[in-house]
Amino acid sequence: MRDLSAGAALLSLNTATLGPRRSLQDAVEACLRHGVGGISPWRDKIAEAGLAQAERMIKRAGLTVTGVCRGGMFTAADAPGRQQALAENRRAVDEAATLGAACLVLVVGGLPAGSKDLGDARRQVADGIAATLEYARSAQVRLAIEPLHPMYAADRACINTLAQALDLCDGLGEGIGVAVDVYHVWWDPELAAQIARAGRDGRLCAYHVCDWLVPTRDVLTDRGMMGDGVIGLKEIRGAVEQAGFTGLCEVEIFSALTWWPKPVDEIMATMVERGRSCV
Amino acid sequence: MRDLSAGAALLSLNTATLGPRRSLQDAVEACLRHGVGGISPWRDKIAEAGLAQAERMIKRAGLTVTGVCRGGMFTAADAPGRQQALAENRRAVDEAATLGAACLVLVVGGLPAGSKDLGDARRQVADGIAATLEYARSAQVRLAIEPLHPMYAADRACINTLAQALDLCDGLGEGIGVAVDVYHVWWDPELAAQIARAGRDGRLCAYHVCDWLVPTRDVLTDRGMMGDGVIGLKEIRGAVEQAGFTGLCEVEIFSALTWWPKPVDEIMATMVERGRSCV
Repeated sequence: MRDLSAGAALLSLNTATLGPRRSLQDAVEACLRHGVGGISPWRDKIAEAGLAQAERMIKRAGLTVTGVCRGGMFTAADAPGRQQALAENRRAVDEAATLGAACLVLVVGGLPAGSKDLGDARRQVADGIAATLEYARSAQVRLAIEPLHPMYAADRACINTLAQALDLCDGLGEGIGVAVDVYHVWWDPELAAQIARAGRDGRLCAYHVCDWLVPTRDVLTDRGMMGDGVIGLKEIRGAVEQAGFTGLCEVEIFSALTWWPKPVDEIMATMVERGRSCV
Repeated sequence: MRDLSAGAALLSLNTATLGPRRSLQDAVEACLRHGVGGISPWRDKIAEAGLAQAERMIKRAGLTVTGVCRGGMFTAADAPGRQQALAENRRAVDEAATLGAACLVLVVGGLPAGSKDLGDARRQVADGIAATLEYARSAQVRLAIEPLHPMYAADRACINTLAQALDLCDGLGEGIGVAVDVYHVWWDPELAAQIARAGRDGRLCAYHVCDWLVPTRDVLTDRGMMGDGVIGLKEIRGAVEQAGFTGLCEVEIFSALTWWPKPVDEIMATMVERGRSCV
């Protein structure tokens, strides 16, 4: 296992960790001040800054772009909706290409409005990814399916386990893999086996950390800072690195109640300290 | 598939559906008024009524006891804690035997206080179930492992999929099976395959229904009335019956915000109507 105790060069800041009020520039400058080696911007923050300016800012700061968040949301109640989603995903691929991102993270989408047909939603996702993958290959952008926690199956992503994501990858060939986020997968009895499988197949595109709080007060925005919850973070990182992952550990914490209200430097300092001691 | 449109004889009322304020007697009388064929009492309600009185009340009403909720909670930080849990489970087995319950439902327990070791918790659960199973066999009570939704892995149950529960059953032999609750398993990509497996192996002990609401406002107590959420209930019941399940459909709805505050007869009438139309 790599030694993270020395500094923050092996950490990447997902812009969501600073909350919706902070800009991409806030995030880039925070990374520089705290020695964080990478960044993973959400697309709304890229749009606010402007893509060209975002690229200049990140390049000048010398930050690795561990991912762009996010593509996906392939499911829709009708064909025009699905076509719109594909067009949006092509734009997301273009942005990831411009920023030289390690991958475009895919949050695949849940049930279309009014639907109770999870099988159909999953077929729509498979079709949407296949269509996007051709475009991504030509742009030399790697797609990373992020299996989301089963509690988001209805409204965010109907790909809910690493096994399911990797099965999908099996049918798609090169240029696609998975983003492993501990928040979504820590409970999975097959976790170790599926991480090893992802490594063997060359599918480990990204590794995201945060923690699972007990109690969890909100389904969406009560993720914990590493060390404040119950996830065996070192064990999971050990498995991911054992499987060949050499990328940065991306910190993505949705925390409306605890962290987002705090000053940027307090969030960053805590994240860096926890990166050293807990990740 | 069985025809549920005629009445409520194939429904069972889990006492949790009426909320914590109502007694076992309230529940039994509600079943009689609304033609509901079965009941599944929580142990606190049995204790309030007294076991002998509970038995008389349910027998006189002619209700099928589809389960007793619940045994389990096998995990603990130390050996005395685990011994206490085993003693408590023996008492739960005795109650299930007295009531002639179809099974004792096991919510197996999550991480012990201070632990981040899910593997260890799962070993504790396997040991606890094995120890309880001997006692249950001698009392002729069937144990039913209820895999809980992964969002409860930390604090309620570290058995989180049907596959995981059935793997555990494989090692234990006769007298144990699973309780399939749609709330916990509806998202599982392996659901159909694992229900079929449970049927083949003679492990289908109980079937619980409610619905998954979007949004879900509380992790614990915002389950939906059947038909108000996104679960494909008929499809899942079809799979369960195809696999050989002939028991009652038990309605278990934790709903602090919506249903518990309502009058008993409103909850019951809605449940019976939805049983006809949506389950």
